[in-house]
Amino acid sequence: MTDTNNYTLGMLAEHIGAQLQGDARAEIYGLQTLQSAKSGQLSFLANPSYQRYLEGTEATAVILHPDMASAFGGHKLVVSNPYLAYAKLSKLFDKQQAVTAGVHPTAVIDDSAQLGIGVSIGPNACIGRDVCLGAGVVVGANSSVGAGTVIGARSRLYANVSIYHGVSIGDDVTLHSGCVIGADGFGNAHEVVDGEFRWVKIHQLGGVRIGDRVEVGAGATIDRGALDDTVIEDGVILDNHVMIGHNVKVGRNTAMAAKSGIAGSTEVGENCIIAGGVGIDGHLKIAGGTKFTAMMLVTKSITEADSYSSGTGMQRTKIWRKNAVRFSQLDKIVGRISLLEKTIAKLLPKGE
Amino acid sequence: MTDTNNYTLGMLAEHIGAQLQGDARAEIYGLQTLQSAKSGQLSFLANPSYQRYLEGTEATAVILHPDMASAFGGHKLVVSNPYLAYAKLSKLFDKQQAVTAGVHPTAVIDDSAQLGIGVSIGPNACIGRDVCLGAGVVVGANSSVGAGTVIGARSRLYANVSIYHGVSIGDDVTLHSGCVIGADGFGNAHEVVDGEFRWVKIHQLGGVRIGDRVEVGAGATIDRGALDDTVIEDGVILDNHVMIGHNVKVGRNTAMAAKSGIAGSTEVGENCIIAGGVGIDGHLKIAGGTKFTAMMLVTKSITEADSYSSGTGMQRTKIWRKNAVRFSQLDKIVGRISLLEKTIAKLLPKGE
Amino acid sequence: MTDTNNYTLGMLAEHIGAQLQGDARAEIYGLQTLQSAKSGQLSFLANPSYQRYLEGTEATAVILHPDMASAFGGHKLVVSNPYLAYAKLSKLFDKQQAVTAGVHPTAVIDDSAQLGIGVSIGPNACIGRDVCLGAGVVVGANSSVGAGTVIGARSRLYANVSIYHGVSIGDDVTLHSGCVIGADGFGNAHEVVDGEFRWVKIHQLGGVRIGDRVEVGAGATIDRGALDDTVIEDGVILDNHVMIGHNVKVGRNTAMAAKSGIAGSTEVGENCIIAGGVGIDGHLKIAGGTKFTAMMLVTKSITEADSYSSGTGMQRTKIWRKNAVRFSQLDKIVGRISLLEKTIAKLLPKGE
Repeated sequence: MTDTNNYTLGMLAEHIGAQLQGDARAEIYGLQTLQSAKSGQLSFLANPSYQRYLEGTEATAVILHPDMASAFGGHKLVVSNPYLAYAKLSKLFDKQQAVTAGVHPTAVIDDSAQLGIGVSIGPNACIGRDVCLGAGVVVGANSSVGAGTVIGARSRLYANVSIYHGVSIGDDVTLHSGCVIGADGFGNAHEVVDGEFRWVKIHQLGGVRIGDRVEVGAGATIDRGALDDTVIEDGVILDNHVMIGHNVKVGRNTAMAAKSGIAGSTEVGENCIIAGGVGIDGHLKIAGGTKFTAMMLVTKSITEADSYSSGTGMQRTKIWRKNAVRFSQLDKIVGRISLLEKTIAKLLPKGE
Repeated sequence: MTDTNNYTLGMLAEHIGAQLQGDARAEIYGLQTLQSAKSGQLSFLANPSYQRYLEGTEATAVILHPDMASAFGGHKLVVSNPYLAYAKLSKLFDKQQAVTAGVHPTAVIDDSAQLGIGVSIGPNACIGRDVCLGAGVVVGANSSVGAGTVIGARSRLYANVSIYHGVSIGDDVTLHSGCVIGADGFGNAHEVVDGEFRWVKIHQLGGVRIGDRVEVGAGATIDRGALDDTVIEDGVILDNHVMIGHNVKVGRNTAMAAKSGIAGSTEVGENCIIAGGVGIDGHLKIAGGTKFTAMMLVTKSITEADSYSSGTGMQRTKIWRKNAVRFSQLDKIVGRISLLEKTIAKLLPKGE
Repeated sequence: MTDTNNYTLGMLAEHIGAQLQGDARAEIYGLQTLQSAKSGQLSFLANPSYQRYLEGTEATAVILHPDMASAFGGHKLVVSNPYLAYAKLSKLFDKQQAVTAGVHPTAVIDDSAQLGIGVSIGPNACIGRDVCLGAGVVVGANSSVGAGTVIGARSRLYANVSIYHGVSIGDDVTLHSGCVIGADGFGNAHEVVDGEFRWVKIHQLGGVRIGDRVEVGAGATIDRGALDDTVIEDGVILDNHVMIGHNVKVGRNTAMAAKSGIAGSTEVGENCIIAGGVGIDGHLKIAGGTKFTAMMLVTKSITEADSYSSGTGMQRTKIWRKNAVRFSQLDKIVGRISLLEKTIAKLLPKGE
């Protein structure tokens, strides 16, 4: 663990192209929220609702939008997008232990594997036949990389990652612990043998292709294709427990929050925002830029980018229960309305 | 990795009992979709909506239903169920590295464990006390098998599988990476000590029994029973992230898609189809042959096999939101209808 | 595996403070349900609906409420809360292999790590720099503990657990296989570079703090905080596949069933009961004692403890589908009702 990630305010301003209002020599050792920051730390104001913490903060300096600059008396880094500036600085203050290049003696690496310059392979990691790891790849403890898999430069696997055979992963990809890339898609035919229904497994002959700058969350799974590959394009970010079925294609820079999933052969366009717990049926096509709200079920293709939803709002259970009963009678209830409409039409004077 | 999985069309026809129309000596090196197939590959037409790709395919041969045979000019394998035929052939073209029998020197195997003929144990796998592995069992890298667990012939654990103690697994079972078999069921009593509510863990004394030909997807979990065992019968197929609670029983050949789950002590019958994201409450009984549509919540026992659903359809968020508001008023809205009905009844001439 | 966990009925009565009605010297070797119990086993009656099994049980003794004592003729342990009594006794009958202290020779332990008395470290486990393990900690096979992490006394990690750097875990915590503690929270800013939308990762500089007596289910994930820590307080129980986002706080003794999840920065109070599959949006505050029913979506803060729900009831798909169509027209349907009301108002005699 690095003991210090200290910078002067001037260095930080330069790093994010901020206008510095204050002392360029002020030393900053960490980032923190306005509420928790101590002297020596840098904070930021991105969400207006946190403005109330600005006055009382102990932060040595704050990243601010020009409109807010007058509201704070200390040192300031003024930028048009404080949240983005914070994101860019966050990397500098990451105290995570620097990874040292080299292969741990307990790692098991097939002789045919090719390791790029500066590769780091952790204890008990297993690298299969004909695997190719780009320069600076980091493989965490107890991770496993299957035969013929190719991983691009600077990509990182944390501990206990499982990658099957024949997977292709781009540069600067992050795979968190417990994720599984390239397990079999859920493909089964059925037959009836001696009167019994039986599943017949369809061997999954395709692979998985993951682009550059993709992040895959803890415990997420991306299945291999049945015949063609499953494809995750550049810049896609997947949160924990995301599930990508076989032959799915996820377009560039699409974001999927935790526990969302996509069934087989669906194509999701670029720049989509898929909230937590969303399920997307198989064999659909989703237009780029589409948004899905939390825990909805997507049952139809989308040709026009917009925000889509399903489900109901939340209520106290005792009130909700009455409404849920009415939902289950809804078609009949509408029949009562139609009958009322007809009855009233007869009661009305002619021509009305 | 095997470099070739080449067959003649005649061998393939014989393997699936197809009527061959064309050259029995034609060489086939792979399976592919109609759209992506190249010369030397075999394709299939199962879904009529793909018929439009038949004319332009570069496949050397196609598996077809007799009704479609006249629509294709190349070599044909004619069968009554092309999808099943494709499933059966898929195994022949699986280029996955053949597993070699033997115990990797880094595997840790308790002296009391019994290993059948042809067992393959990968690097850093751990086999506990009194474990019994049948002939041809494959244990992937970094997997762990707990004390007293028994695994039947030809079953395969991929990398990073976790099996607890006292689990029983049948023949020809496939366990994908990250799945966990036999963790504690979620059983807790509570007590109030010095005014504070506290959970008291119920130790889970049962095990898990898994039948033959079961497949368990990546990251799926099957908990051990509280007193009796959790039971997964023969031929059940479970997709990624499936969750099976303690003392659940899943009947023969039932299929559960990704992210579905069953709470404690529920019994699901044979041949059920449980779609993705379905949740099934505890202590229920589900009739064999039942179908549940995606992301529904099952709150009641089912005595009659049929398809069941819950939830709402999807809409644009701005329209959906208005309807969701109305849902939350639904019982009151029905009150308005009842009042209208009474009012109109008074307005109507007597006897109408 | 211990071959016997045998006790006399007198010892068991004393252990749970039960009134013994019967032979204190009767030997008990196991716990079992009323239906499955054999001679020599102890059973219990907690749920009145199981009373019908009381007469036919082969159990040597039964734990009973005083009101039920007269309904059983055999040996009895009479207590006010039979379920709690069963929970407390379950530990005695756990036949799980006793863990032996010591470090397996294949474990990889950084020289700087501090191991308490009686620590047990399994095969191929990896313990990082400056890790501190309390007395009696058990680390399962192939688990990984990141740099600087501190784990309290008697806590247990099963096989294939992944803990990142800088995590703090209390005493008597249980972490099941496949769970991941301290992976990056899902924090991303965005920018537009050369016309393309791009995500910019926010490095997650906070940690995770887990209290005492917490249980984390198989495959569950708890993300590290963005700046401050993610916090799980004492006594919290989390089932399989639970997902805790960054900077979430879960209050004392709250229970979360399988597949439930909480998005970033939400604070859940003490003693909440969160059923399976529940999703809770980010940045909310949930009052202590709140209950959420299965698979609901929580979109608003809760200030008053009660039970809350969302969704609809289940129905046969063909009936449900009609009602779902009506849901999607609901706002317009209410418009029809309003029109009817106005029309009728005009038809009514003045003053009515």
